[in-house]
Amino acid sequence: MASDKKLRFGLPKGSLQEATIEKMAKAGFNIQVNSRSYIPYVDDEELEIRLIRAQEISRYVEHGYLDCGITGHDWIIENGSKVHEVGEFLFSKVSRKPARWVLCVPEDSPVKSVKDLQGKRIATEVVNLTKKYLKKHGVKAEVEFSWGATEVKAHELVDAIVEVTETGSSLRANKLRIVDELLSSTPRLIANRDAWKNNWKRQKIETLSLLLKGALEAEAKVGLKMNIAEKNLASLLASLPALRNPTISSLSLKGWVAVETIIDEHVVREIIPKLKAAGAEGIIEYPLNKVVY
Amino acid sequence: MASDKKLRFGLPKGSLQEATIEKMAKAGFNIQVNSRSYIPYVDDEELEIRLIRAQEISRYVEHGYLDCGITGHDWIIENGSKVHEVGEFLFSKVSRKPARWVLCVPEDSPVKSVKDLQGKRIATEVVNLTKKYLKKHGVKAEVEFSWGATEVKAHELVDAIVEVTETGSSLRANKLRIVDELLSSTPRLIANRDAWKNNWKRQKIETLSLLLKGALEAEAKVGLKMNIAEKNLASLLASLPALRNPTISSLSLKGWVAVETIIDEHVVREIIPKLKAAGAEGIIEYPLNKVVY
Amino acid sequence: MASDKKLRFGLPKGSLQEATIEKMAKAGFNIQVNSRSYIPYVDDEELEIRLIRAQEISRYVEHGYLDCGITGHDWIIENGSKVHEVGEFLFSKVSRKPARWVLCVPEDSPVKSVKDLQGKRIATEVVNLTKKYLKKHGVKAEVEFSWGATEVKAHELVDAIVEVTETGSSLRANKLRIVDELLSSTPRLIANRDAWKNNWKRQKIETLSLLLKGALEAEAKVGLKMNIAEKNLASLLASLPALRNPTISSLSLKGWVAVETIIDEHVVREIIPKLKAAGAEGIIEYPLNKVVY
Amino acid sequence: MASDKKLRFGLPKGSLQEATIEKMAKAGFNIQVNSRSYIPYVDDEELEIRLIRAQEISRYVEHGYLDCGITGHDWIIENGSKVHEVGEFLFSKVSRKPARWVLCVPEDSPVKSVKDLQGKRIATEVVNLTKKYLKKHGVKAEVEFSWGATEVKAHELVDAIVEVTETGSSLRANKLRIVDELLSSTPRLIANRDAWKNNWKRQKIETLSLLLKGALEAEAKVGLKMNIAEKNLASLLASLPALRNPTISSLSLKGWVAVETIIDEHVVREIIPKLKAAGAEGIIEYPLNKVVY
Amino acid sequence: MASDKKLRFGLPKGSLQEATIEKMAKAGFNIQVNSRSYIPYVDDEELEIRLIRAQEISRYVEHGYLDCGITGHDWIIENGSKVHEVGEFLFSKVSRKPARWVLCVPEDSPVKSVKDLQGKRIATEVVNLTKKYLKKHGVKAEVEFSWGATEVKAHELVDAIVEVTETGSSLRANKLRIVDELLSSTPRLIANRDAWKNNWKRQKIETLSLLLKGALEAEAKVGLKMNIAEKNLASLLASLPALRNPTISSLSLKGWVAVETIIDEHVVREIIPKLKAAGAEGIIEYPLNKVVY
Amino acid sequence: MASDKKLRFGLPKGSLQEATIEKMAKAGFNIQVNSRSYIPYVDDEELEIRLIRAQEISRYVEHGYLDCGITGHDWIIENGSKVHEVGEFLFSKVSRKPARWVLCVPEDSPVKSVKDLQGKRIATEVVNLTKKYLKKHGVKAEVEFSWGATEVKAHELVDAIVEVTETGSSLRANKLRIVDELLSSTPRLIANRDAWKNNWKRQKIETLSLLLKGALEAEAKVGLKMNIAEKNLASLLASLPALRNPTISSLSLKGWVAVETIIDEHVVREIIPKLKAAGAEGIIEYPLNKVVY
Repeated sequence: MASDKKLRFGLPKGSLQEATIEKMAKAGFNIQVNSRSYIPYVDDEELEIRLIRAQEISRYVEHGYLDCGITGHDWIIENGSKVHEVGEFLFSKVSRKPARWVLCVPEDSPVKSVKDLQGKRIATEVVNLTKKYLKKHGVKAEVEFSWGATEVKAHELVDAIVEVTETGSSLRANKLRIVDELLSSTPRLIANRDAWKNNWKRQKIETLSLLLKGALEAEAKVGLKMNIAEKNLASLLASLPALRNPTISSLSLKGWVAVETIIDEHVVREIIPKLKAAGAEGIIEYPLNKVVY
Repeated sequence: MASDKKLRFGLPKGSLQEATIEKMAKAGFNIQVNSRSYIPYVDDEELEIRLIRAQEISRYVEHGYLDCGITGHDWIIENGSKVHEVGEFLFSKVSRKPARWVLCVPEDSPVKSVKDLQGKRIATEVVNLTKKYLKKHGVKAEVEFSWGATEVKAHELVDAIVEVTETGSSLRANKLRIVDELLSSTPRLIANRDAWKNNWKRQKIETLSLLLKGALEAEAKVGLKMNIAEKNLASLLASLPALRNPTISSLSLKGWVAVETIIDEHVVREIIPKLKAAGAEGIIEYPLNKVVY
Repeated sequence: MASDKKLRFGLPKGSLQEATIEKMAKAGFNIQVNSRSYIPYVDDEELEIRLIRAQEISRYVEHGYLDCGITGHDWIIENGSKVHEVGEFLFSKVSRKPARWVLCVPEDSPVKSVKDLQGKRIATEVVNLTKKYLKKHGVKAEVEFSWGATEVKAHELVDAIVEVTETGSSLRANKLRIVDELLSSTPRLIANRDAWKNNWKRQKIETLSLLLKGALEAEAKVGLKMNIAEKNLASLLASLPALRNPTISSLSLKGWVAVETIIDEHVVREIIPKLKAAGAEGIIEYPLNKVVY
Repeated sequence: MASDKKLRFGLPKGSLQEATIEKMAKAGFNIQVNSRSYIPYVDDEELEIRLIRAQEISRYVEHGYLDCGITGHDWIIENGSKVHEVGEFLFSKVSRKPARWVLCVPEDSPVKSVKDLQGKRIATEVVNLTKKYLKKHGVKAEVEFSWGATEVKAHELVDAIVEVTETGSSLRANKLRIVDELLSSTPRLIANRDAWKNNWKRQKIETLSLLLKGALEAEAKVGLKMNIAEKNLASLLASLPALRNPTISSLSLKGWVAVETIIDEHVVREIIPKLKAAGAEGIIEYPLNKVVY
Repeated sequence: MASDKKLRFGLPKGSLQEATIEKMAKAGFNIQVNSRSYIPYVDDEELEIRLIRAQEISRYVEHGYLDCGITGHDWIIENGSKVHEVGEFLFSKVSRKPARWVLCVPEDSPVKSVKDLQGKRIATEVVNLTKKYLKKHGVKAEVEFSWGATEVKAHELVDAIVEVTETGSSLRANKLRIVDELLSSTPRLIANRDAWKNNWKRQKIETLSLLLKGALEAEAKVGLKMNIAEKNLASLLASLPALRNPTISSLSLKGWVAVETIIDEHVVREIIPKLKAAGAEGIIEYPLNKVVY
Repeated sequence: MASDKKLRFGLPKGSLQEATIEKMAKAGFNIQVNSRSYIPYVDDEELEIRLIRAQEISRYVEHGYLDCGITGHDWIIENGSKVHEVGEFLFSKVSRKPARWVLCVPEDSPVKSVKDLQGKRIATEVVNLTKKYLKKHGVKAEVEFSWGATEVKAHELVDAIVEVTETGSSLRANKLRIVDELLSSTPRLIANRDAWKNNWKRQKIETLSLLLKGALEAEAKVGLKMNIAEKNLASLLASLPALRNPTISSLSLKGWVAVETIIDEHVVREIIPKLKAAGAEGIIEYPLNKVVY
């Protein structure tokens, strides 16, 4: 376990790194990566940041080299890591869908279900997950670790692949067909079990979790304000349950009130036409940094 | 015409692509471009996005391959496309000026007006526009299509060019002088005429237009809040017509009110000193995602 | 001195250029750099922007080629420039620390204080500053101008260096030890002394200063809103002095009020857990463009 | 026509620019492009280089703004330019095939021949070439200018495209089928007809042509040397006609000779095993800068 | 096994890709990678190129999906692949040293030999190699797969690493000490065992091997020519055994001969001063494309 | 002075770095820069490479931190460094002209000679050189150090600049006029005076010099071979003095000989047409790695 006076926190290195550092900044922790040093600067003396591949974080949290870290549910399962799961985070903004590990074959493959893979060869980055899945279905097949470009392999190097997808675009572009889903995965904040028993560390981790959740929640939410004639207010609120717990304040213009609320960004596109129809005026949407209920 | 259950929407590819995708996201439609596929992902099952060169969008909207699209007024005219124009959008943030197609010559050219171009040679990307313009002025000159780097050609390859400019910086840097303006152009949302007659499509396009306008409008606006002693309020509002329809709310501090409004971002720099002079305190400006009147 | 009808304003070129242009945009002045021209476009006809190395700005402001400019306190001192200092700006967001020019040696160097440098050789970009510092301590040493990569030189080319640091990360990565601090520096807006005596220019500079400060201030601040039961309000405010001058407004839900304030972004991470503990609900944090007290 | 004392020479700008400048250097003319100037430096005071889009060069050579230039046979035909063709150059090294403009449709399109395009729509960069081709086959179809990404259009925006290909890889990757070939094209050195009648210019152009051809020829050739026992020499030469006019020199080792020749690089891979079989030893292949017969 | 009429050839994808394609071109096979297709073009209709991670090539050659491929000896061993090894290639030009997989610890680690790793944890990309090595030394330790940045892990995440190095620079920069070497590895051309039994394929592979070896050999060799007085020739050759089998030819200048030979590029720097001392004049060194003995 | 067993060699860092490393490789010394370490790898255990800004190398050679280094004559003079100059190298390939430090003013400046600069302000990177030059001409003017973009300053920040140029392209593009030349400069190999007195070091430096000169010489030379009828040989050689000391060898074709020589690359373009006119056939030009007379 790392020192008692510091919390050693693992963040995913590589493709997610920039996004994670941005979210940490929104949560209130400014991190600066120095190309000459493997230890990033963070403006909190109680934190020590380590950038580690997402695939490995759960392993180092389990061993205690890290007190806590952010990684995907998929890699915790793949590694079989024994860690405390502190919280689950919101899905990515673009698709609002979790990452899915799916069994895929070429569009014109005769394979229709996992049963058809008996005696075949499968390439994947998640060898353990795939073996467990095959075992569950009583299928014997060779599973080999894929070092990358797995989608391309499905067409001639192996019979099927297990690959991760969010929107499915890349699978479609590669002319692949999904046969089955093995696992759906979201990002998690995990803690080493001993660190979690340490009061100071646990409290620090919980604060981190609260703030990060607040920052991530805010990415999927927006603030919405509008003016409406008082007489139309009740019907507006009745017909729009999405406008949860709005703040109503009176305006200088007699008979009019201002309504303000926080809502899911992705429903705004449906609600704005309805708000206009219900008589709302001067509708504005503004961005948020954090939302903590 | 594309399927009745989907709206096929053309966005400009290339230099404007990133900005357009960002604005669509602000409007509430998250688009993800996959380098292996020419069909981008969008998180709305009723939409199909196509990225097409701005110069060609009006042509494919006219033919019905696209139901609607965003392109410039200039290219609609140049192509002579018969389409329904749904709406005009705000100008770019930097200059707040429309794009202008101008007739240019080198600074030291003897050419003073279009009349001086009789028998000369002109290079341009908008051949039809230029020919129409010359005809209107009764000038006969050769107009040739320029594949790019038009500004450089004015100095030795041709006698004049017709080029687009926003701030004029690039023309000045190339030592060119503007002789005349042929067309001023802003972005438009256009629809295929048959699609516009289809109820479902028309409503979908109108919603898109409303949200996109809201997002673009928001780029040029900001929220402004301040506190002021009640006794100074009237004179503040009287002297500052830009503070349109402010929300006035009382503060816990007796005799003080909070004033909040939405205003054009480019007047803030003139207004803030005046607000301070008028007694306003704690002035804050915040960004907006959408503004829908 | 530049023309009376225009204010010629020098901004730092190079590594700080993009950030400065972004801050100017937040202040309300949109600048567009044209790769073919050394004069950037700005959407204010009373301004003329020049991009000049931070090290040289104070010199050109002193000579009157620029009316005003933004540069660091360090370079004003190093150049010994006689200019009027209009204002100091907030520190960078990441570390919230000023830049520090420090005397450094390799971690295992026998040098413990400046006194140990008698007869040695020191490399630095700030030759004048360093010579003055040595003189003050009665130490004679050779000071040579370093054209770059100064940190690497400390290990074999010279005996010590005087280098700038913010978080110290880069010094640690280069195995260097700080012996002493020569100067702590923050960005300043400076004016030519004659320009400052000209009424029109002075007023223009003061407006620029007000808006830029507002924009920079806003980078370190956020808006915070929350709902709380009226009965808990007093204790909340008493225990949290950071919530300076909040706006309290009543909610439609009886017995509850909305509290809104502007606070330093870096205290939010400590305050949010306390707010929750004190009974606050629906806490949201939102970004600001400008804060002008 | 440009000045009599200088030869104004147009080289293709853009994707071919770097390769062309490299070939010119091999021919003995070193060119340096300055990002701030549109006139490149060349170390020959009798030359003036202009970088112009390949599509436009023949037009400016015809008009006399350029004395000569390098461009493709395709664009000379498309533009209908009346110029003197000085010489044809070797094909690209990778495929050793000329560029081919081909009529393409999606793999699963019902279109089998140009006749099936009656009344259809075709997108292409070479509108004139395509119209002439359709006319020759008595087919009426709309031909529209494509501003780029033509391959993608074939799948839904138009019925067919006319596109350029060298190896066919890109067409296959886009699931397109070739219906017919319109034109096969290689690079040409062309001259303005008046410039060609001027003795000084013609001689300068001919020298340029000789040296450029020498440099291009050298890209497809290599030098080959080997040692062989004199008794095996005759049968070696008899069986390998590719070894044209070799230089035979005696070695210090009695009974052995050295054979040296210049051959096409692409036959080396077939010849080397045969040379070994015929008794050759110490075979070396070396690169060439120029080959002038 | 792939088709009998084509040879399917796997080349390493990624960091070595560009260098490999360049060497193949030198061998006489021009390859063009198309970003939209996973099948590169090659100008030999009997070849089918596949770009696959070096770590995986031996596996796909063993299974017969590839007929042959180029990969490192290390990955053949790590994968335990049963393949026919056709040939070994020369080491890289810079260091002329094979890649070495070494056991490393931090410079100040107490670990002095593999014996000290009992019960410890080791991170590596070559898990099988490392386990075999530990077993041979009777050491029990945990070996975990490292997804990257292995060098950094040695300092705090694990007790030791097994990493690849060529010059040792990167290990020194990371303050690591080599404890032991597990394996020294060079690139190999390998063939599927069935493909090797097929006459046509075997002959094609052997030709490929001959040409590739010739191209790689040529990277480490140069041609050297010089003139020398005949009387000095014998002593020159006697004292310089590196000048193997030179070609001696007489010059027009009486009493002088030209000496020409092929030698290792890395001895030239030692030989040239000696050649000058021995009376050689007009020494020139020229590059080679292929050397086949 | 550095250790007696190693030669510490400074190479210019930055814009010339890649070219220098390439030339060192041609000279026979392969250098590999590691982004994590400031000490590059070189495949010669007697060498230690340091990459240092060209402006500083002469200073560190003088002090003995480096035994030798490559830098420009200009910086040796500017720094007033007392070093031993081992050799001068060839000019760059493109222009074959030395770098020139020139006094420049805007094209339309009234300044015609250095005399007109009395009391003016001059910006330059070479402050000492410029001061010495002004003193020589009895002109008093302020000279200030320019941190970069000096060319732009001439137009409004100062009255004149002293800047370096090779072809003059950049000055022309910036509308500057050359008033006078202060210094013409070529690259030099310099040695510390004590190192030069040490036998081992001196010999090592001389070998380095010989090989580097050979490599640089080779960049400006090529090999030329051709066949000619014996009867035409004498007149060919008589009329072409550039064909210095050719090697003549007889061909198997009776009455013909092969002529081979090394000549300046930049005369080839003039000579080839003459060679053809004189009856030469099968002319080939090939590249060289080193030329040592």
